[in-house]
Amino acid sequence: MKTLIVHAHPEPQSLNSSLKDLAVSTLENAGHEVRVSDLYAMNWKAVVDAADYGPHASSPLKVALDSGRAFDAGTLTPDVLTEQEKLLWADTIIFQFPLWWYSMPAILKGWVGRVLTHRFTYRFAYGVGEHSDTKYGERFDAGTLAGRRALLSVTAGGPESHYAARGINGPIDDLLFPIHHGILYYPGIEMLPPFVLYGTDRMTGEDYPDVAKAWEQRLLTLESTEPIAFRRQNFGDYEIPSLHLKEGLEPAGSTGFRLHVRG
Amino acid sequence: MKTLIVHAHPEPQSLNSSLKDLAVSTLENAGHEVRVSDLYAMNWKAVVDAADYGPHASSPLKVALDSGRAFDAGTLTPDVLTEQEKLLWADTIIFQFPLWWYSMPAILKGWVGRVLTHRFTYRFAYGVGEHSDTKYGERFDAGTLAGRRALLSVTAGGPESHYAARGINGPIDDLLFPIHHGILYYPGIEMLPPFVLYGTDRMTGEDYPDVAKAWEQRLLTLESTEPIAFRRQNFGDYEIPSLHLKEGLEPAGSTGFRLHVRG
Repeated sequence: MKTLIVHAHPEPQSLNSSLKDLAVSTLENAGHEVRVSDLYAMNWKAVVDAADYGPHASSPLKVALDSGRAFDAGTLTPDVLTEQEKLLWADTIIFQFPLWWYSMPAILKGWVGRVLTHRFTYRFAYGVGEHSDTKYGERFDAGTLAGRRALLSVTAGGPESHYAARGINGPIDDLLFPIHHGILYYPGIEMLPPFVLYGTDRMTGEDYPDVAKAWEQRLLTLESTEPIAFRRQNFGDYEIPSLHLKEGLEPAGSTGFRLHVRG
Repeated sequence: MKTLIVHAHPEPQSLNSSLKDLAVSTLENAGHEVRVSDLYAMNWKAVVDAADYGPHASSPLKVALDSGRAFDAGTLTPDVLTEQEKLLWADTIIFQFPLWWYSMPAILKGWVGRVLTHRFTYRFAYGVGEHSDTKYGERFDAGTLAGRRALLSVTAGGPESHYAARGINGPIDDLLFPIHHGILYYPGIEMLPPFVLYGTDRMTGEDYPDVAKAWEQRLLTLESTEPIAFRRQNFGDYEIPSLHLKEGLEPAGSTGFRLHVRG
């Protein structure tokens, strides 16, 4: 495998950083190539603004349009171009981050917003992606990053029961759906089931050996892990162009995000 | 009303900025007080790091713990203290932002992460919030920002059907749940139903008068708008400490995030 690890925690001695380091050594020892984007160490610019698009920023700024024009013209900033090159190099991407306020840290959201530009991540709009009675642009399993697989490795401070089906925070699969499906599956990346550690606010060094063992096992079985079976957009499951799921495809009683997983 | 508008768009001539400006003038003309946090104009620091906690940053850094200690000691940075003061001043908070990659822009996520510190937003953990057989800390309708109401005003590029109950993006209420419930209801803020504009990628100046009229109507009826009926944490709906919703409280067939709305 060629694995890119995108890491978002400010403290090198944190649990998140330990998991990142363990991923590097475990994968390299198993003969895989690994590259790391340590966003805090890189002092990653988190905020999307006109400076990202150089001479292709229009006035007034149009974020989506300008990001696509700058991509086409090759005038995105060097930090963004480097990350896009890493994504094209990788076949596997691991995102390592703490669940802060039920989602990713701002620095990682800023990586998403600046790196996953129009035209890089999907051939949608501007006349490139086909729009017809059977196709609504090339996205959701048909994007330019298709063929890649990704995994979220997430730490949550609270106990697992709070993230269960009836837990007060909502089910972890639903909390992660906008990242799994909305951000990463959109440009075609297949998502592996996440590696989630709960109760990390109360975790001590004594807990770490078990955590490390579980993480190593996930890492060493990545290649044989089945991805989440998100539905494909353009292959008959959805009405075009409403993109409503056709009636009757889901298991009885399914609603919400779950509709978009097969079987 | 005393309204704080937290605004997150880089372009002063954007639809988002127009909606922000319209909110200011509409509310002021109706006799309300308004303050604005224009995050891009303020050059808001988006990234949570040790610099936020000054001398109270421990080594290794503990984000949650250190943020609470710095709050208690009064050593949070001036930009954060100013935002906390605005939140305490306000009885109504409007968040104006574009839905980027199915959530808020990084600069706004960074406002959440840096402003809503431990001890400011909830008296949870560290021995302050009571933990007992009937109470699990003061949060979800019992936090330190209780008595306030908030509204998300959001623009979405795609068409409304994609965000409907069976739409491919998932229902908008589910996409916004982690913000409504996880971020804002957690410290006690009541959430009003969101104001969502769809299809903004294809909107033109000709569409704006209707949009403006709809927004003005929402703004002028905020005081009489019923909040989303999220369940209270410590008043019998949840098992303590698992925080599982007790069986049988939900309408038949409800699952996922919807469980946590009454009725």
